[in-house]
Amino acid sequence: MSRSLIRPIVQALHAYVPGEQPRIKGLIKLNTNENPYPPSPRVLREVRRAVDGRLRLYPNPTAQGLRERLAGFHGCSPENVIVGNGSDELLAMATRAFVEPGARIQWLVPSYSLYPVLAQMHGARGAGIPLEKDFSLPPLSRFRRDAALTFVTTPNAPSGRGYPTSELDGLCRKLRGVVVLDEAYVDFAPEHAMGLALRHPHVLVSRTFSKAYSLCFQRIGYFVGPRSLVAALDKIRDSYNVNGLGQVAALAALEDRAYYRRNFRRVITTRERLASRLSELGFSVYPSQTNFLLARPPRLPAREWLGRLRARKILVRWFDLPEIRDCLRITVGTDGEAEALVRAARNVLAR
Amino acid sequence: MSRSLIRPIVQALHAYVPGEQPRIKGLIKLNTNENPYPPSPRVLREVRRAVDGRLRLYPNPTAQGLRERLAGFHGCSPENVIVGNGSDELLAMATRAFVEPGARIQWLVPSYSLYPVLAQMHGARGAGIPLEKDFSLPPLSRFRRDAALTFVTTPNAPSGRGYPTSELDGLCRKLRGVVVLDEAYVDFAPEHAMGLALRHPHVLVSRTFSKAYSLCFQRIGYFVGPRSLVAALDKIRDSYNVNGLGQVAALAALEDRAYYRRNFRRVITTRERLASRLSELGFSVYPSQTNFLLARPPRLPAREWLGRLRARKILVRWFDLPEIRDCLRITVGTDGEAEALVRAARNVLAR
Repeated sequence: MSRSLIRPIVQALHAYVPGEQPRIKGLIKLNTNENPYPPSPRVLREVRRAVDGRLRLYPNPTAQGLRERLAGFHGCSPENVIVGNGSDELLAMATRAFVEPGARIQWLVPSYSLYPVLAQMHGARGAGIPLEKDFSLPPLSRFRRDAALTFVTTPNAPSGRGYPTSELDGLCRKLRGVVVLDEAYVDFAPEHAMGLALRHPHVLVSRTFSKAYSLCFQRIGYFVGPRSLVAALDKIRDSYNVNGLGQVAALAALEDRAYYRRNFRRVITTRERLASRLSELGFSVYPSQTNFLLARPPRLPAREWLGRLRARKILVRWFDLPEIRDCLRITVGTDGEAEALVRAARNVLAR
Repeated sequence: MSRSLIRPIVQALHAYVPGEQPRIKGLIKLNTNENPYPPSPRVLREVRRAVDGRLRLYPNPTAQGLRERLAGFHGCSPENVIVGNGSDELLAMATRAFVEPGARIQWLVPSYSLYPVLAQMHGARGAGIPLEKDFSLPPLSRFRRDAALTFVTTPNAPSGRGYPTSELDGLCRKLRGVVVLDEAYVDFAPEHAMGLALRHPHVLVSRTFSKAYSLCFQRIGYFVGPRSLVAALDKIRDSYNVNGLGQVAALAALEDRAYYRRNFRRVITTRERLASRLSELGFSVYPSQTNFLLARPPRLPAREWLGRLRARKILVRWFDLPEIRDCLRITVGTDGEAEALVRAARNVLAR
């Protein structure tokens, strides 16, 4: 009986599978692109200080203080900013606000594997547009001008490739529906496209505190864009979607930018060093503007590498997708973690 | 241009309006049914202790530990439990998992004013079924047997009235679609209906840590029910929907039940005392099984009372709905807050 209680669309759905979150002692976790450095001491201090009787109260329903600070940071108004329970929540809300069931959503392949799930969940017609062989953007003619929603991860995941703002601008100019530029990794890149969200009436930029600001645990993401689009998202937002300690943490993080900029630089330095070490071992490493590397390992199939590294207590990510089945996605950890990975890889090759 | 980017259904939507969350010094806040007592010292201690480098990591994606503990608590399996970013998130997900756009959602009137917004947002046909004059359940014949989803707040808000489990069972037996029994306030009631969710293939019970466990700030709610319905909700859940410190807080709260049971008793004692004091002043007070009272104030219109109490730094809630426009909904605070309210009311009447 109860099967018939569930919508066919949901019955047919293959849910998004997030990377593993094992808490195994001694495991080096390079599989979900977390920042290897903790939040700043100020963030920890301010969050701890907020753990008091206020937990009994509802948090600010619109994350007002945080939106004001973000608006100041990006040079826009709080009405251009909406905060989500992680940017995942906002990506899902974008389908519900801007796409009629049956209308079209498009994204690039490979990119964030959540997008097709969101399309399916919403009953939209989804289409993945293949990136070029080197993961650069395909010609504009490949995009449907009339898609209700287009998702672009920039810099791209899982390839790590960055896209010049001028190219993204050209793409936005072509498209008639809403465009979400998902900049989850942008703090590790030389360029961002925030200006496009503040210039075009149909472009939103997605950001998150998870990766760059070491706050995955507290689920804070946000969109910046035109007021009318932000207001539409706000209408369908759960009233108290952003937990209070997360708001406190994100606000404190913005007060401590110097700490985080230092971390961005460290991650970038480690990334470049790791890329050359892996290349020396025979990996083909794609250029990256993110906090991870996509690399084709030598000699053994990538899936085999996944298991052998895991046996050596190093967890990386492998995707069973045709375009990247021969690659590993490796989060850039600390220098020590990168060293351990290189040692383990050398060890695998020595067998 | 950008208006046409937004779905007509969203353009037409009147968003849910949550109660005010002003942080005014000295204000006595009796408008959003928060618990007047802080979380237990153990909860505060454990949350503070968790504020460390782990914030950089993703939280457990399925709130596994918390679901296991809740399953033990309710005598079911973790597969019968799903945790949400507040129960609001799960209520919205229920519409998306169980209701085709165009199909029917029903709820009682007056009850949680979010339900009609959820129906509208989802493009469902919604129908409010009037409660009896004394807020008891209407005859079964008033319910549509074939509604895809039925929301029942029990005990009811904003009236405070409780419904016997036997009556709810009769209602569930009649209905063919999914039934959500929303027990947000049940810890202040003499009876709960959890057994129905574990017995019927189409019944879910909604609970929250917000009110009873003084954790509004951290957004933790959950549903208990049949595995197949829980699995369907799980498929459409955002991967990391429950923030980590919220998971820590809820787990710690379940370890400290004695503290919370004491608070439930205190709230109930204050509630009964406040009800008789208000009755003495000429208020008509409805019987309550919750942490609030619905009361018809004497002499002046309820809306006028709202303003006059606010001028005396006491914030209560007034709903501009035909059935309860002549009433105030008053959260039960501490004894001291209840005394302050009675004094203020006496003062209003003395003018």
